[in-house]
Amino acid sequence: MVAFTKGHGTGNDFVIIEDANGTLDITPEQVAKLCDRHFGIGADGLLRVVKSVNDPDAAASLAEDADAEWFMDYRNADGSVAEMCGNGTRVFVKYLVDKGLATIPAGSALPIATRAGVKDLTASATGYQVDLGRWQLARYDPQVTERGLDVSRPGLGIDVGNPHVVVVLQSADELDALDLTKEPILDPPAPEGANVEFVVPAHPLVDDGIGQIRMRVYERGVGETLSCGTGVAAAALAVRHFVGEGAPDNWKVTVPGGTLAVRMFATEDGEHVGLSGPAELVFSGEFSL
Amino acid sequence: MVAFTKGHGTGNDFVIIEDANGTLDITPEQVAKLCDRHFGIGADGLLRVVKSVNDPDAAASLAEDADAEWFMDYRNADGSVAEMCGNGTRVFVKYLVDKGLATIPAGSALPIATRAGVKDLTASATGYQVDLGRWQLARYDPQVTERGLDVSRPGLGIDVGNPHVVVVLQSADELDALDLTKEPILDPPAPEGANVEFVVPAHPLVDDGIGQIRMRVYERGVGETLSCGTGVAAAALAVRHFVGEGAPDNWKVTVPGGTLAVRMFATEDGEHVGLSGPAELVFSGEFSL
Repeated sequence: MVAFTKGHGTGNDFVIIEDANGTLDITPEQVAKLCDRHFGIGADGLLRVVKSVNDPDAAASLAEDADAEWFMDYRNADGSVAEMCGNGTRVFVKYLVDKGLATIPAGSALPIATRAGVKDLTASATGYQVDLGRWQLARYDPQVTERGLDVSRPGLGIDVGNPHVVVVLQSADELDALDLTKEPILDPPAPEGANVEFVVPAHPLVDDGIGQIRMRVYERGVGETLSCGTGVAAAALAVRHFVGEGAPDNWKVTVPGGTLAVRMFATEDGEHVGLSGPAELVFSGEFSL
Repeated sequence: MVAFTKGHGTGNDFVIIEDANGTLDITPEQVAKLCDRHFGIGADGLLRVVKSVNDPDAAASLAEDADAEWFMDYRNADGSVAEMCGNGTRVFVKYLVDKGLATIPAGSALPIATRAGVKDLTASATGYQVDLGRWQLARYDPQVTERGLDVSRPGLGIDVGNPHVVVVLQSADELDALDLTKEPILDPPAPEGANVEFVVPAHPLVDDGIGQIRMRVYERGVGETLSCGTGVAAAALAVRHFVGEGAPDNWKVTVPGGTLAVRMFATEDGEHVGLSGPAELVFSGEFSL
């Protein structure tokens, strides 16, 4: 039997398995079984909590920052290996802190090793913030067609470590009416696929210096989800881009699973984007792999 | 913290909470939270395991059969009270037997109290069989329109304690292509709604004396599910009705979540229908209500 904890960040949910010494060899088939919502425990993905020195995949991160004691081994629900997960990092750190495995240094960040490099985690008003690092315009701006209402609109490509296309809609009614049981059509198609975010500005768009938008997301290979952390960051970046000069660097993004905050800030190596929001541990149990 | 076990029968899944003395008062809001697949444990419903003498709702059943020691307090995922659940009874008995709370008498049945009366459970080759009792033609045979392919076909109304409408399709391809993300339209509408089963006969229809069909189901107020126990019984009864004289009394029904067996058999008070299939306990844990 393997002990696990179940947690989520704005409804993006994870099975967490602690394996500090890296002795568990969990196959893709076992991950898929764990994550099955009817036959297993049920989750969007698995977070394996392992010390960086005990996992070969953490080696690249360690070279960059030898202080990242813990490695987030993230797997998608289908068993495939994933590089990063914005909501997952907050749940990962919530687990470390609650179990006494790590503390966030006062006024500083806790570095976490991931397959996409070391990510800095800090405490925030609503939970935790992860620094997603640098972002860029993807220079891929396809026409996006939603297949329920048959709405067709221009999309803006944003790269936040993974590819996104953001579409701005006219009204909250339009957002609510989207049929995201069908994958939106991108023309031209994205070479490696892309998550598609549909957003509407709130009224007013900027309140007390903070931009406010609502969003729904279609994740490539998954379908509509309650929340996508990097998608939330991409959506705020795209709307700031469209608003242009004078647009705020702080955003509140409401998704079906809750509300997240996005912050753009200057660093030595260019502008970074940070994502903050809640992380919850829901229950713990035992499962036979 | 409340201890629970998670189980399923052909993918129809349940949170099981043992409360022999009937001391837990679980509100509809708590049930909905428990059953939420992203923010809670996740399930189609809750099975509360309570001694019949310790639950007022079991009184009606007890009058009928004082031997039903255990009462299956079943709640839907939305928190509403439900009378019965075919797949749920098997998982309930699997729990009783595995935990040593009851045994199935050799060559006899274990009576379980439910809000729909006492149900007799027996061991079967693949797990357990529940006697669903008497059934009848509903005399409500609407035209059914599926809204993806826009297929329109006559339906046959069957009452197995709850209302069903069964539609026979032409081919397995047609069954696979159905879009059950949208509720099928019944004309005239069912007064209290009905579950809709779409079925295709296997080739051959009868193999070694056993009828064989495949089925998908749209459950009223829920959507498409992996399995619906009473729907499986209704589907077999409807196809036997269409085939007419010489049709078998034993059926194998394959649903997206697995395979179930249906048996029609004579009793003192008329023909009964029995449903048998697997029941699995998947994991156990603790949750804060």
